[in-house]
Amino acid sequence: MPQKIVKLTVQDVRFPTSLELHGSDAMHTDPDYSVAYVVIETDQGMRGYGLTFTVGRGTEIVVCAVEALSALVIGKSLEEIVSDFRGFYRLLSSDGQMRWIGPEKGVIQLATAAVLNSIWDLWARLEGKPLWKLLVDMEPKKLISCIDFRYITDALTEQEALDILEKAKEGKLQRVDQMLKEGYPAYTTSCAWLGYSDQLLRQLCNDALKDGWTKFKVKVGADLEDDIRRCSLIRQMIGPHNSLMIDANQRWDVGEAITWVTKLAEYKPLWIEEPTCPDDILGHAAISKALAPLGIGVASGEQCHNRVMFKQFLQAGALQFIQIDSCRMGSVNENLAVLLMAHKFNVPVCPHAGGVGLCELVQHLILFDYISVSASLDNRMCEFVDHLHEHFISPVEIKNAHYMPPKDPGYSCEMKEASVQSYQYPQGEVWKQIKKQKD
Amino acid sequence: MPQKIVKLTVQDVRFPTSLELHGSDAMHTDPDYSVAYVVIETDQGMRGYGLTFTVGRGTEIVVCAVEALSALVIGKSLEEIVSDFRGFYRLLSSDGQMRWIGPEKGVIQLATAAVLNSIWDLWARLEGKPLWKLLVDMEPKKLISCIDFRYITDALTEQEALDILEKAKEGKLQRVDQMLKEGYPAYTTSCAWLGYSDQLLRQLCNDALKDGWTKFKVKVGADLEDDIRRCSLIRQMIGPHNSLMIDANQRWDVGEAITWVTKLAEYKPLWIEEPTCPDDILGHAAISKALAPLGIGVASGEQCHNRVMFKQFLQAGALQFIQIDSCRMGSVNENLAVLLMAHKFNVPVCPHAGGVGLCELVQHLILFDYISVSASLDNRMCEFVDHLHEHFISPVEIKNAHYMPPKDPGYSCEMKEASVQSYQYPQGEVWKQIKKQKD
Repeated sequence: MPQKIVKLTVQDVRFPTSLELHGSDAMHTDPDYSVAYVVIETDQGMRGYGLTFTVGRGTEIVVCAVEALSALVIGKSLEEIVSDFRGFYRLLSSDGQMRWIGPEKGVIQLATAAVLNSIWDLWARLEGKPLWKLLVDMEPKKLISCIDFRYITDALTEQEALDILEKAKEGKLQRVDQMLKEGYPAYTTSCAWLGYSDQLLRQLCNDALKDGWTKFKVKVGADLEDDIRRCSLIRQMIGPHNSLMIDANQRWDVGEAITWVTKLAEYKPLWIEEPTCPDDILGHAAISKALAPLGIGVASGEQCHNRVMFKQFLQAGALQFIQIDSCRMGSVNENLAVLLMAHKFNVPVCPHAGGVGLCELVQHLILFDYISVSASLDNRMCEFVDHLHEHFISPVEIKNAHYMPPKDPGYSCEMKEASVQSYQYPQGEVWKQIKKQKD
Repeated sequence: MPQKIVKLTVQDVRFPTSLELHGSDAMHTDPDYSVAYVVIETDQGMRGYGLTFTVGRGTEIVVCAVEALSALVIGKSLEEIVSDFRGFYRLLSSDGQMRWIGPEKGVIQLATAAVLNSIWDLWARLEGKPLWKLLVDMEPKKLISCIDFRYITDALTEQEALDILEKAKEGKLQRVDQMLKEGYPAYTTSCAWLGYSDQLLRQLCNDALKDGWTKFKVKVGADLEDDIRRCSLIRQMIGPHNSLMIDANQRWDVGEAITWVTKLAEYKPLWIEEPTCPDDILGHAAISKALAPLGIGVASGEQCHNRVMFKQFLQAGALQFIQIDSCRMGSVNENLAVLLMAHKFNVPVCPHAGGVGLCELVQHLILFDYISVSASLDNRMCEFVDHLHEHFISPVEIKNAHYMPPKDPGYSCEMKEASVQSYQYPQGEVWKQIKKQKD
């Protein structure tokens, strides 16, 4: 019996993280980690859950965009959608009127992600599998049929994509076993947000080392002296063999990025993340070229809004680490395209996570990448931030600094009903309290 | 007395253009030309009018974004804003929470344009000048202070921008006189929308020739045989010495664009516009390189979302014609940056217009470009589409295929109150009638 989608609801759910400077960086100084949270329902009572991540104000705009897209979803059956997922992706991303306000970027792309994430969740639930397993078990031809190749055929053809997936069938089962046993390597960003004191930094870093973490990211970019002190402190604490990454969250111009990072080179960062504007492909290429002799790579992607941008970052040799995001681009469909292009260009994928639900979501994609595409863990790791997982029905499981593969069917982003109620903005209990205290 | 902004209203105004296929192209097959229409009001009863252009569905999302931005505007005085316009621009574009859903792209950038357009309009009205004259009369240092140079200093420094403006002071008065007498050269897109029949094409083209038009744009990209027939028809009618431009509205992949346009080369198009994804800088560079031997340039910009993208298009030699838009980017502020960069890279600016109000707005920018920046008309012209001007208080004036400089104070985008009322979506009379007919 086909499952016809008869209902789509979307809610604005915000967590007041700015009160404690969690998540603070050089450009987002007071984020309230938030989601536009989507629930779809079929005529047979099955549900799919999806979300996109935001940082507070503006979430209502994404909610409005999801509502606009819902007309394209309601009335369709899941079978109809997944039998031509490429077509459905294009229906959403290329609506003859709505594409004008994108296309495939910003608010409308974030909304597309939320909606499509809920559809992938529904699909995986109906198949009784966690999303990563749904993908891993899917025949290459079917996987390819989910990708819109428009605008990327000069970098990756359908045939090349198919060949990559066919080739990676070798050793797949062993990699599934390995992942189930060991999990996927992670790094932590929880220690060194910009708003944290040195004392808190030290304490968090110490705790992380005890828990087995070996890869640490530090936020930089607001003040050079401050960055030198913080990088020095972290490098001292973690020793010469663990990894240190630095993240400027787009703070610099191109020349400034090169000068600034050169001054932090002695702390041996593996990468500088988001040194400048996320749209600046040629700028990242120039920074990459200048920092290569120092052994520092360039990483970006959490605000890279579509496959065409990633295509160019790869073509230009502008990034040495590709940071996919589960909510910035058009869901699994577009991420599949990027994983395949990254493989072709031989650039490791190290996903962006954190926020609300990004860890829960993106772990599925990186497990698929290892098992079915890259077959490699070299220079690869997935971001982890230890925040807000308690609001999810199937939160991530970290063991010895590794993501353990999710076992529950779906895409892991169903939130607890009580959390959604309390943190709804502005009418949830938590926000009513905050308002009361402010008044 | 300072003018404090005390009120901002925004309305969703849509024109049912899809009923007659006006504006139809290869990607936007059924546009309802629309605006998010902003009115700001000061405590002294002065008003500023601004808008951003959209094509129907999704306008409500832009309206929602304008409402979110209004909190950053209300309570500020115009004097406060323009005394540090760069700072105010950054306040809007880099709000620590809202920038996540952009940054500087898509819905939030369109909303920023609408809001800032209304502020520029207010400023020009208070100075009692049409906007182009306000800009032309402004000292270079003051002009520069309106531009956010973040992320573009590797292509254009403040000093270089200042030097360009200082140098162009020579001959400025003559150019003002020349413009007042002759106007700025325009080309027409009104003849050859994709949805029009050959008969209508012929008739419109004939009428345009009689009215003195010498430059014609044809929509292409949906069907090659059809394009050959239409281009042949138009080239025959306009003769070998008039200009023909073709516009694919992003229909092709890179390789496809090269093959397709090569087949239209015999009709001697001056440029191919939007051959592929508007984000694909390297793709446009490849197409430019391939088409250069055929004497065909590449044009794009109406969906180029910010100065960082234009910077790269220029750095990569990807465009031979820069098509600024008055609503896609961050209003006059960001367009100033692009005009100056285009001048430095020696690429002519040929603005995108049409839609609703785009002609009214962008004529001011291109007049300023000629008078105060480029001092050249070589290979330069401004798009004109003869639609919907009747809804404006100060509509464009075209004489002998030239834009005549506006004389009324402001930025020319105040709409007639009756039009706003009738076309409001969904509650306006026009839409109520359409709904009734459909039901």
